[in-house]
Amino acid sequence: MKNPFDLKSHLASENKRIDAALRQLLPGTSRIAEAMRYSVMAGGKRIRPVLCMAAAEAVGGKGEEVISAACAIEMIHTYSLIHDDLPAMDDDDLRRGRPSCHVAFDEATAILAGDALLTMAFQVLSSLPCHEGTQALQLLEIIKILSVAAGCGGMIGGQMRDIASEGICLSQEALVDLHSLKTGAMIKASVLSGAVLGRGDREQIEQLGNYAKHIGLAFQVADDILNVEGDPALLGKAVGTDETRGKNTFPSLMGMAESKAFAGKLIDNALSCLDIFDSKGEPLRAIAIYIVERKK
Amino acid sequence: MKNPFDLKSHLASENKRIDAALRQLLPGTSRIAEAMRYSVMAGGKRIRPVLCMAAAEAVGGKGEEVISAACAIEMIHTYSLIHDDLPAMDDDDLRRGRPSCHVAFDEATAILAGDALLTMAFQVLSSLPCHEGTQALQLLEIIKILSVAAGCGGMIGGQMRDIASEGICLSQEALVDLHSLKTGAMIKASVLSGAVLGRGDREQIEQLGNYAKHIGLAFQVADDILNVEGDPALLGKAVGTDETRGKNTFPSLMGMAESKAFAGKLIDNALSCLDIFDSKGEPLRAIAIYIVERKK
Repeated sequence: MKNPFDLKSHLASENKRIDAALRQLLPGTSRIAEAMRYSVMAGGKRIRPVLCMAAAEAVGGKGEEVISAACAIEMIHTYSLIHDDLPAMDDDDLRRGRPSCHVAFDEATAILAGDALLTMAFQVLSSLPCHEGTQALQLLEIIKILSVAAGCGGMIGGQMRDIASEGICLSQEALVDLHSLKTGAMIKASVLSGAVLGRGDREQIEQLGNYAKHIGLAFQVADDILNVEGDPALLGKAVGTDETRGKNTFPSLMGMAESKAFAGKLIDNALSCLDIFDSKGEPLRAIAIYIVERKK
Repeated sequence: MKNPFDLKSHLASENKRIDAALRQLLPGTSRIAEAMRYSVMAGGKRIRPVLCMAAAEAVGGKGEEVISAACAIEMIHTYSLIHDDLPAMDDDDLRRGRPSCHVAFDEATAILAGDALLTMAFQVLSSLPCHEGTQALQLLEIIKILSVAAGCGGMIGGQMRDIASEGICLSQEALVDLHSLKTGAMIKASVLSGAVLGRGDREQIEQLGNYAKHIGLAFQVADDILNVEGDPALLGKAVGTDETRGKNTFPSLMGMAESKAFAGKLIDNALSCLDIFDSKGEPLRAIAIYIVERKK
């Protein structure tokens, strides 16, 4: 899987743009504003907003036209991390190498900062400049796509299943289902949002949805592999935690070699969904490969 | 303040419609779906959705056209109650005479059920039938109104201030500010959403916004009074809790007689904002009076 596209510098410049836009959307000196900014600016990989912008560009749109929507997606992602880390949930004290929001602030502030980020995402989406009715219809469509993906039939439903299944042995099918909700739904929604805002046609949107489904699952398989083989210093968090907690993971279920082969197969499938795209699809191709090759 | 309009039967029939619509929007047998339904169907006063529908009717719209939006507003309200009751926040075991969501289920489920209700509100709003671009623009406007009101510059900001001010003596001005955020913002947004969806003109929307500002504050003053003088059996919760917690309340700050006079003055101001409305404004007038005369 050779790729002449320089993903490293693409990601660096995209992350810079996204971080600048996020910082502008998150001003204020109140405690809640500080907690929101603390978690959003903690330096995530920004995979979801980058995917949103890359999908918009793949269908002929411009990344800068969707950057606010991309930021809204990152806010939804960050809120989910803040709430997942809470003592009543995964009880994680560290996130991205720094104290989790409820450790750095307090539990009440972390709950409210998560709530506020989720709410602000919809404020950002509904405040986008919109001069024509057709643009308004597109914005409503992505608000629908993202709220369905983030809700109890998507990410939240996946988190519920994840909590319920700790210590219980899942089938491979059930594990795939769990992750298609917990992480897959929002990754797919990120790609689709970009494709819709970039005014992709029906076939493009369908192929991008399939692409996203494959990379979303591959992303989780790779995460599970990193939790076994990764470097804690690079990851910014402890490894081996899935096993300690009795979590269902792809390596524990199908073995390490099979898991790696599965991730590779998913990426091959994702790449073939991009066949209809010209060179504007390069960032999406490179991201697919990066997802399984990343070290953090 | 005489009123020939029969509010009791109006509220009974509106609540029946709203409850039926909410039940239809909240199906499912998963644990998260049950927790969401448990809290939403716990039998609140439905003041916010009733206000939304009454505002739509006051400007010449139809209540049934805004009932889904009214349900979305009640979902946002319910999510805020679930999260406020959490051990890390107000730590309330009882809500509306029944165990709070985190007591009836568990803390993780309550956090996620709140998150899911907030998310579903935006799903409902973005899924409303919308055949023209102008309707889409109106829907985007109410998504913006509601997300701003529910966010860190509104309800969540008010809750943060409320937590921070326990045991600290506030000025009357600071207490008014706190409540204009914590409860006032969403009450105003409920009225404005109905007015916008009912296609009110600029003056109507402005006057309804002022009406809502006054009743929102009066609602909180009345709540504080009920926490001193109310009947726990009617309220479905303990009284005297504000004093025990060292909460800033209007009675503690300005005395009981002054608080009642203040609430009455606010309602008079609210009623005068309705002067431009004909008999279609009767429900809004009756609700204003009910807000200070209610026993629960």
